[in-house]
Amino acid sequence: MEHDWATLDLHRAARTGDPEVVYGAGKTPEQVLTLLHDLHEAHPDRAVLATRLTPEAHDVIAAALPEATLDAVARTVTYGPLPEPHGTVAVIAAGTSDGPVAAEAAVTVRAFGARAERITDVGVAGIHRILEARPRFADADALIVIAGMEGALPSVVGGLVGIPLVAVPTSVGYGANFGGLSALLGMLNSCAPGVVVVNIDNGFGAGVHAARIARAVGAQAGR
Amino acid sequence: MEHDWATLDLHRAARTGDPEVVYGAGKTPEQVLTLLHDLHEAHPDRAVLATRLTPEAHDVIAAALPEATLDAVARTVTYGPLPEPHGTVAVIAAGTSDGPVAAEAAVTVRAFGARAERITDVGVAGIHRILEARPRFADADALIVIAGMEGALPSVVGGLVGIPLVAVPTSVGYGANFGGLSALLGMLNSCAPGVVVVNIDNGFGAGVHAARIARAVGAQAGR
Amino acid sequence: MEHDWATLDLHRAARTGDPEVVYGAGKTPEQVLTLLHDLHEAHPDRAVLATRLTPEAHDVIAAALPEATLDAVARTVTYGPLPEPHGTVAVIAAGTSDGPVAAEAAVTVRAFGARAERITDVGVAGIHRILEARPRFADADALIVIAGMEGALPSVVGGLVGIPLVAVPTSVGYGANFGGLSALLGMLNSCAPGVVVVNIDNGFGAGVHAARIARAVGAQAGR
Amino acid sequence: MEHDWATLDLHRAARTGDPEVVYGAGKTPEQVLTLLHDLHEAHPDRAVLATRLTPEAHDVIAAALPEATLDAVARTVTYGPLPEPHGTVAVIAAGTSDGPVAAEAAVTVRAFGARAERITDVGVAGIHRILEARPRFADADALIVIAGMEGALPSVVGGLVGIPLVAVPTSVGYGANFGGLSALLGMLNSCAPGVVVVNIDNGFGAGVHAARIARAVGAQAGR
Amino acid sequence: MEHDWATLDLHRAARTGDPEVVYGAGKTPEQVLTLLHDLHEAHPDRAVLATRLTPEAHDVIAAALPEATLDAVARTVTYGPLPEPHGTVAVIAAGTSDGPVAAEAAVTVRAFGARAERITDVGVAGIHRILEARPRFADADALIVIAGMEGALPSVVGGLVGIPLVAVPTSVGYGANFGGLSALLGMLNSCAPGVVVVNIDNGFGAGVHAARIARAVGAQAGR
Amino acid sequence: MEHDWATLDLHRAARTGDPEVVYGAGKTPEQVLTLLHDLHEAHPDRAVLATRLTPEAHDVIAAALPEATLDAVARTVTYGPLPEPHGTVAVIAAGTSDGPVAAEAAVTVRAFGARAERITDVGVAGIHRILEARPRFADADALIVIAGMEGALPSVVGGLVGIPLVAVPTSVGYGANFGGLSALLGMLNSCAPGVVVVNIDNGFGAGVHAARIARAVGAQAGR
Amino acid sequence: MEHDWATLDLHRAARTGDPEVVYGAGKTPEQVLTLLHDLHEAHPDRAVLATRLTPEAHDVIAAALPEATLDAVARTVTYGPLPEPHGTVAVIAAGTSDGPVAAEAAVTVRAFGARAERITDVGVAGIHRILEARPRFADADALIVIAGMEGALPSVVGGLVGIPLVAVPTSVGYGANFGGLSALLGMLNSCAPGVVVVNIDNGFGAGVHAARIARAVGAQAGR
Amino acid sequence: MEHDWATLDLHRAARTGDPEVVYGAGKTPEQVLTLLHDLHEAHPDRAVLATRLTPEAHDVIAAALPEATLDAVARTVTYGPLPEPHGTVAVIAAGTSDGPVAAEAAVTVRAFGARAERITDVGVAGIHRILEARPRFADADALIVIAGMEGALPSVVGGLVGIPLVAVPTSVGYGANFGGLSALLGMLNSCAPGVVVVNIDNGFGAGVHAARIARAVGAQAGR
Repeated sequence: MEHDWATLDLHRAARTGDPEVVYGAGKTPEQVLTLLHDLHEAHPDRAVLATRLTPEAHDVIAAALPEATLDAVARTVTYGPLPEPHGTVAVIAAGTSDGPVAAEAAVTVRAFGARAERITDVGVAGIHRILEARPRFADADALIVIAGMEGALPSVVGGLVGIPLVAVPTSVGYGANFGGLSALLGMLNSCAPGVVVVNIDNGFGAGVHAARIARAVGAQAGR
Repeated sequence: MEHDWATLDLHRAARTGDPEVVYGAGKTPEQVLTLLHDLHEAHPDRAVLATRLTPEAHDVIAAALPEATLDAVARTVTYGPLPEPHGTVAVIAAGTSDGPVAAEAAVTVRAFGARAERITDVGVAGIHRILEARPRFADADALIVIAGMEGALPSVVGGLVGIPLVAVPTSVGYGANFGGLSALLGMLNSCAPGVVVVNIDNGFGAGVHAARIARAVGAQAGR
Repeated sequence: MEHDWATLDLHRAARTGDPEVVYGAGKTPEQVLTLLHDLHEAHPDRAVLATRLTPEAHDVIAAALPEATLDAVARTVTYGPLPEPHGTVAVIAAGTSDGPVAAEAAVTVRAFGARAERITDVGVAGIHRILEARPRFADADALIVIAGMEGALPSVVGGLVGIPLVAVPTSVGYGANFGGLSALLGMLNSCAPGVVVVNIDNGFGAGVHAARIARAVGAQAGR
Repeated sequence: MEHDWATLDLHRAARTGDPEVVYGAGKTPEQVLTLLHDLHEAHPDRAVLATRLTPEAHDVIAAALPEATLDAVARTVTYGPLPEPHGTVAVIAAGTSDGPVAAEAAVTVRAFGARAERITDVGVAGIHRILEARPRFADADALIVIAGMEGALPSVVGGLVGIPLVAVPTSVGYGANFGGLSALLGMLNSCAPGVVVVNIDNGFGAGVHAARIARAVGAQAGR
Repeated sequence: MEHDWATLDLHRAARTGDPEVVYGAGKTPEQVLTLLHDLHEAHPDRAVLATRLTPEAHDVIAAALPEATLDAVARTVTYGPLPEPHGTVAVIAAGTSDGPVAAEAAVTVRAFGARAERITDVGVAGIHRILEARPRFADADALIVIAGMEGALPSVVGGLVGIPLVAVPTSVGYGANFGGLSALLGMLNSCAPGVVVVNIDNGFGAGVHAARIARAVGAQAGR
Repeated sequence: MEHDWATLDLHRAARTGDPEVVYGAGKTPEQVLTLLHDLHEAHPDRAVLATRLTPEAHDVIAAALPEATLDAVARTVTYGPLPEPHGTVAVIAAGTSDGPVAAEAAVTVRAFGARAERITDVGVAGIHRILEARPRFADADALIVIAGMEGALPSVVGGLVGIPLVAVPTSVGYGANFGGLSALLGMLNSCAPGVVVVNIDNGFGAGVHAARIARAVGAQAGR
Repeated sequence: MEHDWATLDLHRAARTGDPEVVYGAGKTPEQVLTLLHDLHEAHPDRAVLATRLTPEAHDVIAAALPEATLDAVARTVTYGPLPEPHGTVAVIAAGTSDGPVAAEAAVTVRAFGARAERITDVGVAGIHRILEARPRFADADALIVIAGMEGALPSVVGGLVGIPLVAVPTSVGYGANFGGLSALLGMLNSCAPGVVVVNIDNGFGAGVHAARIARAVGAQAGR
Repeated sequence: MEHDWATLDLHRAARTGDPEVVYGAGKTPEQVLTLLHDLHEAHPDRAVLATRLTPEAHDVIAAALPEATLDAVARTVTYGPLPEPHGTVAVIAAGTSDGPVAAEAAVTVRAFGARAERITDVGVAGIHRILEARPRFADADALIVIAGMEGALPSVVGGLVGIPLVAVPTSVGYGANFGGLSALLGMLNSCAPGVVVVNIDNGFGAGVHAARIARAVGAQAGR
């Protein structure tokens, strides 16, 4: 399916197991709607996803696709039947302001075939909150750990459990935060072994990676 | 076990499933040797690992621990019985100069309990080499994709398969490469969904993450 | 021709073969209109070009110069008879959001005396789309390859053909994209030999360079 | 006292309570020795300090001033009677490689009139080590917290106690550590309130600040 | 006390002596109001503080909590009885435009239990103004020195007195100021010993650190 | 004269020969007006200057001080009798968009006691324009050379004459211009000997420096 | 041809018209020799090229392949019969220190099938040298313009002729040159239309691009 | 005079009043010697200058040109009769380590026809030293102010006198000094009006600019 402004990659599900996703930033509401429609037609039995919706795109899609599921905090829409979930991803966020990124990650995890469990506001300056939350993430198949400012949370969590862990730096902060650079560099230099990192505010990318881990383990384990 | 210059974290294996690893850079050969010895004593039935060995440390350890396994390219030593492997990680490197990072990743994968399969010199300027190599990595449980310069290889590989993929930028290059920054930024901005990234030249970190994925899947699958 | 705010370089066509171009950013609509008018008067038989038009300048010029050709996506205007084209430039863009830069490049190519052939939305995460498009660019005299995010497309295309290739990084992306820096550095470090680069979003500069190549070859070849 | 290459600020002790300190980097051994001698002559009853000694300066001073106290790890020399100490500064370091910076801080604290208590190798990836060490720093008058890589330790310590805390980023790390930049930015963006920061590897500056706090409190408290 | 978007750290006062503070940026007025209310309920006899209020949050809180004290320049609110003050912090600002940061620092100092004395507009290009102001800060227990542009004021003040000094870089300036980077780097590289630094525009952090020093000294001294 | 938000440095004229100047950015129109009034009262026989006026400040001052001279392009106001000029400064700008910076420089030159001669739109891509303009600047006492983008003009002019030359980088450009960084670095690395540089867009600073040179030479020469 | 450390891309000549080139940096002399040998065997009638030779590799190859042509300044070796040249590339360098980059570019141009004409030491601070040299490059089919420091030369040359122009920034300079960044940014922001840029010190890449232009035009023109 | 590796600009003295200067970095001792010889031959009655001599070049020139004047600290050589001096430049350095840059500046000032007066080690942390030195620079015709670290000295000096002032940032410092970047940014953002800046460690450039000012004023004044 080809427009003069876009060429959808409809073979992607065959190659990678998951259909293409619509990145909503920099597209008009009509473009997002058209691409969602085309993807749904090509994959009628698997939910398709769009992210980074503008408020305008949110409204246009809500009106045009009443059966789609929109999330205003995550700025996402899923359209079509969700896949049966396998495995669990714990989505852990350091602060209140990291909420939208955590929401995007959780929606993505679910759309890519795993369960998402959210844990909120467990910053490292109150270390007891992390220790208390440990039982809630110690049995997950994968972790997504989200933090802005100094981005220290993945190092602490990564020292408590040996579960595959994806760190997401956010742009929350000011001044020498430089739009998320401080958290990004902090996570890339984590002293906890095995911490991997995605782009600033990229809840989606973390969700895809973690869901693929969780669903592979969960499917083999029959859960 | 505590020295006045170090406090080993001997509980780590209990918390995370894997013992602490000795990071050899900035330590004297004697310090590395002492820490290896302490770790081995605490974990006699599980290989312990040291990375980033200087040539001097390599020689001291080879002489002092003849039963240890040293790898001069990877700059690593493993000491003690390797764990039984589960699952497979494909370690894919773009160019010849990325070899040491790939070797470090492969040694780490094995020491953390998975099998490593290496694929060498498949840069994106010869795209057919990647397509030809696809069967060799299409059944892996996790991928490590290593590249310097523009760091484009993970985007191409990540569009061919849906396996969890860790990208490792290397410092290979010159000028506006800025010590690996170009590959790092390229990988963080990959258009392939789900690509996650570690620090520049950090084959070890990628190996830990990928091995944890592969051994979890492999163990559930009984392979 | 000299205003107290500008001194047009009317000798430029004599020196370089092409008249000066009006860079519309940071100029008032009236300034752009005046400069276009002066240039047209000095070069009545060769189209003159203005780029980076603001919406206000677009409207002022459309009203004042009804015989001019405006392109709202490219944000350009050409005024006067286009030169006879020689040779062909393929303008290849990685994603939908790179459209305006591709349009600016194509308009410039035509205004500088070559033909432009556009190929759209062939990102490296769907490598088959590039391979399928190869016949459409394999006979061009020069290539313009446009991409944001990790900017990997020129490396792949530059490994498929030996045609002179100009890479254009775009500011499409977010976070560690740093306004196009990731694509810029990626392209400067391309492992494909002979890739040259222009400023971020500079479709115009790529168009000038590529058109000069194509028209020189095409003119000698009599096409 | 004035040389043609230096003008010592001998009034500084009168203005600020502490004599000038010799910064050894970029000076010849003879220059360091001369300045130490001049300072000692001006302040015979208060130890004077030189930092960042080269190995050559260390040897020259050891030979010339046998009654001086040299520390090869801290790269410092103190010369003259140490002031009576008041108050206590806990000097907490995340890893083995941060040792020289911690040693410089501790020597400085003592030379500026407070006691230094060192706590070693309590990185955030083994959070229990920090919690176990808490009683050793909970009664200090000021804290110096030293870490490289992601620089997360001050955030965790700063959430456990309300003591004035100075964070020292170190250049320990590699790749996207950028010579200590990651730890510096992490500490500047700490989510623990009241964390203040000095230059990378600047154990001296942290020592001066913390000693001034501790000795003021200690002196008032009669300890 | 736990909301689905926030988990207040109500144990913090017990651990560190001071309750958690609400950082208003990136929160809705209602969220700020709710958190203030919860904190006040948990700490009825100690003022709680919120910073970085948006104008909207300012108005909502002024209407809902008429007994709270709002400061429009500092963008703060304190709610509940202020602690009895001990010790004094001098808050010194280089220029008029640094006023809001100085106000935030002063409000914080008072809310954390010390007195704040403000000194305004004593930039280094008029050095006599600093020398004349010396008596006003020479007896303080701690100093906060605030400057934008080249950030030189802490070096001059730090050479005049030996009081613990916290430097605050501000984003005041333009061009190669890079949003406060010039002042931040200047302060981190201060040639005056013992200068410590907080994030750009972080009057709050400086206030917490300085108040903890002043109140410790003041309490011991019985003032 | 002291306000609670500002302390004017009224001794500056005695120390440096020129009164303080009001930097309008970040001040309210009323603050600018008050400071202008105070400065004028202290220096009734020498024009005082304010720069970086907002449009609002421009209107308030135009209404309140009808005898003041406002320049909407330069965003300046001078108030009081201009000093008798000595010597001449040539103000040379590369492009039309550099006009506001050139205007600010010219107004400052005149207010600081020298004559300003403006030369416009002589970019290096039309080198003949610079050669033709040489006679207009070859007899000046000082040069101000203004350029954005690559900032090459000072190198060319500085190779044509031996007059003291101040280069002003401007923020004109886009993409890898990084807000004027490219021009700033270009000018700092100029291969023409003796080129000195001010902050990005700082026409004022260049004007002060150049006027002081020109008026010293001109006064001695009796012109 | 495949080694365990390298996989040569022997199809490249078929795809792009030119065989793979050996990048000597980071390879042992023996690896370079082996790859040269393999490439020559696969392309016996077309010279193969290696660049960035270390002095050790230079000596090993000189001894092993006496019929190869080595250039110690360019740090290159060509091995096998050079292709018949078509068209001409002028290689213009700003300063003496840019010599090695210019030499690498010239060797590459010749090995890729065009003629190279070198013009030396025509920096912009002596503009007459460029104007005098104009006849020597005005008839070339492509230009390579090499400069360090502020990198202004391409802007001047690009305003004198309309020939396709590749700019090469070099790392010549110090301080705020930042290893060639100033020249790189200057060239990317050139005000001359159509200037394209390669990586810092990348004479090879410029040579490939320019040779492909020149040989295409020259071949059509029968010269 | 033209070598195949260099083209001396022998017309420069006619255009700018001063002959070309040999920049010694990156040149062989023999190249420096040859260029000095050529320049001296072209300008027998005016001293020629070479800077940034390596120790090897120093020795070669000392042996070959015994009548030349070498300065080992400044790393310079002057060859031929010095011009009669006019006017005076005060060269003020903040610290001992800034000595080589100050020496280069002073030698250049003298070679370009003015007198140099040096003032040493007057850092801003001992402000009284600057105030005491004021009489020594208050009558100079131009000032060169040299500082590393935070680079604050020009702001203080520039507030004390109204003499044209050139600031030279040096690379003295460590950590967040980033090779002189902190001092460079500090000086570019100086709050003292009229401060102009040269590249890091560029004593030569400052010397040229300041000498041209001083000799112009001094010549007119007949001193």
